[in-house]
Amino acid sequence: MARKTFEVRMLDEIQDIYDVEKRLLKALPRMAEAATSDVLREAFEEHLTETKRQIARLEKAFQLLETPARGKKCAAMAGLVEEGGKLIRDKNEMDSAVFDAALIAAAQKVEHYEIATYGTLATWAEMLGFEEVGDLFEESLAEEKGADDKLTSIALKINVLAQASTE
Amino acid sequence: MARKTFEVRMLDEIQDIYDVEKRLLKALPRMAEAATSDVLREAFEEHLTETKRQIARLEKAFQLLETPARGKKCAAMAGLVEEGGKLIRDKNEMDSAVFDAALIAAAQKVEHYEIATYGTLATWAEMLGFEEVGDLFEESLAEEKGADDKLTSIALKINVLAQASTE
Repeated sequence: MARKTFEVRMLDEIQDIYDVEKRLLKALPRMAEAATSDVLREAFEEHLTETKRQIARLEKAFQLLETPARGKKCAAMAGLVEEGGKLIRDKNEMDSAVFDAALIAAAQKVEHYEIATYGTLATWAEMLGFEEVGDLFEESLAEEKGADDKLTSIALKINVLAQASTE
Repeated sequence: MARKTFEVRMLDEIQDIYDVEKRLLKALPRMAEAATSDVLREAFEEHLTETKRQIARLEKAFQLLETPARGKKCAAMAGLVEEGGKLIRDKNEMDSAVFDAALIAAAQKVEHYEIATYGTLATWAEMLGFEEVGDLFEESLAEEKGADDKLTSIALKINVLAQASTE
């Protein structure tokens, strides 16, 4: 009975991140299309490929946990996507480098949401003895950290352009 | 004109995190009250003190930027608070250590949202030549990272209890 509560809580968190990844799957092509710099567009396209892999890993995790794969609406991610959509609609109001800088900021919020969630899940899965499931989360966690670092390095270049546009 | 867009975008982000901190100011006492372990309750209480300092820093930043201090609803944070509230209402459905583990997971999502935002803001403020403002964001960024690390170390202990409750 008590065992059930920790597992149920873990499944709840997996359903949350599954919803997040599915929303991101739809949002990333729009972000890639909106990006004005090639390097940023390519980074979003690459992260789309990673997101597909992460979804496959989650489906594998559901399978290993003998639970049907389904998401549960993540209100925070819905909020992030809403803010990203508004930013894209406002694109014409700002310099292109400033827009890219803001798009990176929005994307890094999503990355950090995922880093927090996969970090929790990797630990919980291992604690609960689901080592193979934990390994899947560790892989996605490493990818998310890599994606965040990549965005930071792109931001360094784009911020210089954004700043130059202000002079 | 172009200068305005990057600054406007930065102010927009400051208004976002100001809203986040204000929401957290209300949520943290509820989280502290709900926490079942003393060490977690104390961590939330300590973070409440930090949150008050961070709000004061944001108000100082608004002042330095000669802009009235006001927040702009952050939909993502509203979502996180909503999820945290639901978790607290469901407290009785789970073992106390499992509840604390889930509360930490929810809090770390907030910390990561703030880490992403203060990281962006610190860089932008420095790029735009607002060094003193940038320093304020760097201080809050360091505090948020510290709070996240502290929650991770508390989680390690609580997860052992949560796991023990499942055997």
